[in-house]
Amino acid sequence: MELQLAKGVRDFAPDEAIARDELITKLRRVLERYGYNPLETPTFERRDVLAAKYAGGAEILKEMFIFRDQGRRELGLRYDLTVPFARFVGMNPQLKLPFKRYAFGRVFRDGPVKLGRYREFYQCDADIVGTKSMLADAECIRVALAGFRELGITVKIAVNNRRLLEALLEKGGVPKEKVVEAMLTLDKVKKVPLEEVKRELSAKNIPQDAADFIIRLAAEEKTSQERLAAVREYLGAEPEGYRELVELFTYLEGVEVVSFDPSLARGLAYYTSTVFEGFAAESPITSSLCGGGRYDTLIGGLLGKPEAYPAVGFSFGIEPIMDVLKQRGGKRPKTLVRAYIIPIKTITECIAIAERLREAGINADMDVNGKSISKNLDYANSYGIPYAVIAGRQELEQGKVKLKEMDSGKEELLTVEEAIARLTS
Amino acid sequence: MELQLAKGVRDFAPDEAIARDELITKLRRVLERYGYNPLETPTFERRDVLAAKYAGGAEILKEMFIFRDQGRRELGLRYDLTVPFARFVGMNPQLKLPFKRYAFGRVFRDGPVKLGRYREFYQCDADIVGTKSMLADAECIRVALAGFRELGITVKIAVNNRRLLEALLEKGGVPKEKVVEAMLTLDKVKKVPLEEVKRELSAKNIPQDAADFIIRLAAEEKTSQERLAAVREYLGAEPEGYRELVELFTYLEGVEVVSFDPSLARGLAYYTSTVFEGFAAESPITSSLCGGGRYDTLIGGLLGKPEAYPAVGFSFGIEPIMDVLKQRGGKRPKTLVRAYIIPIKTITECIAIAERLREAGINADMDVNGKSISKNLDYANSYGIPYAVIAGRQELEQGKVKLKEMDSGKEELLTVEEAIARLTS
Repeated sequence: MELQLAKGVRDFAPDEAIARDELITKLRRVLERYGYNPLETPTFERRDVLAAKYAGGAEILKEMFIFRDQGRRELGLRYDLTVPFARFVGMNPQLKLPFKRYAFGRVFRDGPVKLGRYREFYQCDADIVGTKSMLADAECIRVALAGFRELGITVKIAVNNRRLLEALLEKGGVPKEKVVEAMLTLDKVKKVPLEEVKRELSAKNIPQDAADFIIRLAAEEKTSQERLAAVREYLGAEPEGYRELVELFTYLEGVEVVSFDPSLARGLAYYTSTVFEGFAAESPITSSLCGGGRYDTLIGGLLGKPEAYPAVGFSFGIEPIMDVLKQRGGKRPKTLVRAYIIPIKTITECIAIAERLREAGINADMDVNGKSISKNLDYANSYGIPYAVIAGRQELEQGKVKLKEMDSGKEELLTVEEAIARLTS
Repeated sequence: MELQLAKGVRDFAPDEAIARDELITKLRRVLERYGYNPLETPTFERRDVLAAKYAGGAEILKEMFIFRDQGRRELGLRYDLTVPFARFVGMNPQLKLPFKRYAFGRVFRDGPVKLGRYREFYQCDADIVGTKSMLADAECIRVALAGFRELGITVKIAVNNRRLLEALLEKGGVPKEKVVEAMLTLDKVKKVPLEEVKRELSAKNIPQDAADFIIRLAAEEKTSQERLAAVREYLGAEPEGYRELVELFTYLEGVEVVSFDPSLARGLAYYTSTVFEGFAAESPITSSLCGGGRYDTLIGGLLGKPEAYPAVGFSFGIEPIMDVLKQRGGKRPKTLVRAYIIPIKTITECIAIAERLREAGINADMDVNGKSISKNLDYANSYGIPYAVIAGRQELEQGKVKLKEMDSGKEELLTVEEAIARLTS
């Protein structure tokens, strides 16, 4: 039998797993500071839940992994964390709203495998259900920014409002029933040449100049306030989406990196008002690092009460964030081990030394195979372990061990206490 | 559509998810102190890998969830973390041995759903591959004990050796080819009446008194050293398993809670020498909380090199550990939020206060729905949030906020700095 991974999935060897754990731990901590609590839902759901009308939409359903249990019930691997969240809210009517949760988990799409696209990948979502207030939308943007601050990634966040975009498109001549289609095309404006956007609008029987005002305004060097003023003038009115966006910006006063982008649409049909996306400010990685928005009818729709569960949320894009962190370079440890203990016929003593280091909170490992000193140093080197603790009979008789800094090769004769102090400094 | 979970799986609402996260964070940290690094493998594998001869065995394969991808390749949800670990080791021949990894992840079994049995559950495994030394076996036991110390759970660990057990059973009259079958029956000795064990031995055509010496010795109040002496006398020899066990105990000197139990067998066929299991010392929960052993041929067998990958490892039983922690009682928070900010027409100021609290590392949430004070206090109460920060115009004009301790009802007028100091103390 040839050993192979299933197509489109990955192992995360320790170096990658360590880096991912660090990322996730930081993001979780930030989300918790903003009042989100963890919620975990199963890896698979009943197929009918995942395929419900208000759920993922036709495209995503084509990519669902489907199977049956022994009772012949149809199941599917979850393709996102939002539908299970909606199902949880629906099954727990006792939940006091607003309810804020974060979820970090694996999701699955049986789609074509391309560079950077996998069949199993991580999502990290934060959502608030039970409020229509733009305060919640502002908070989502603030927590996203706090997350990137924690990671040391400088981002810019583009914000728009679907209701406002609808008004602008209608003013440009898009028939009401074609507004969502026009938005999904407009979503490509930063990714493909302008002519292609126009061609696609035409192909959808939408006037190809319908989005010209939007695209031009988005390209101009203007502040958010100037853009809002231009939009107001163009519309000659202050529709609800406009007012929401203005309110949102009052809650984001002093947050420099957020700006109004009238061309931002987001590719999903379910957003109802605020939409936003974050991008790395100084990085060749052009994928969005986070994105979200308000979806006031999604959860309620799934539960047959479209008005009852207004919600807003967003995802951190774990894969593009990992790409930015990788691209930035820096140390990528292969191991968390800090000290590698090498007994020289001093096994019993070394077990005790290892236990003392571990009790002091130091990640310590020890040779168990009785290798020679040089083989042991090679081993420590190959894993990039920063220190070796060499314990020969002679050193131990002086109550000491030899602490070797692997990078410099510097050796010191220290008591175990002193070595612990050095290793924890 | 009726909203339902798939059969046999669970949501972990915040109270449960918080408790589980805490458990996992502690265990991970302990495993890292002992030199284990994280390794993550996919949720599904190729069916042929999961069903390979040396993999899970016939019983487990009957419970595998099976499906296909769009390329019609047969896949299965992983039923444990060991087979994927073996596959990873096989696909990475450059790995420097010994290689130590831990894995914490969800595994799946499409079996009957009973109390405490789920179709999706967590495993937390730690394994060392690439050593035959009993030092590694001792370390597994030590790290398990360190994990329970960290959790504040007092445990007893029973240890045995399959080779020794084999010698004892053969001495008792079990034919060589029936030894594994006899072991699997003996594994039930603590769970069912003795007569049932004897009946099962008879049914397998094994002398029903073959295990009498073992069972009697296990029941006697004796130290491990006394039992080892009794075994040596009974056998009139020191077979390899005996010597291994003696060596293991020398590496566990001073570890009081570990004892030799000649009747311990463990239910899996793949163990080759050391086996051990841990139980809560003072708890009505009788399931084992951890268990493991040496499996020198499993990984190599899967890779077609049975001798090349001696390994030892164990699992923490996350579900029974959660049961022990629950049964012990104690506070089980519904939220991680520590301070709930209540604006009284002071939204902008409260956004700034919330941000200051969060920057100071305090988990803070804020009313976004403009509820009345009493409704807000009800809300904070219903989630068990320990503090409310009430910010009226009058307080803010004095540069202060009102900090209310929810349990006692005690209110204090404090500056935000003072409130932060109180909340972080």
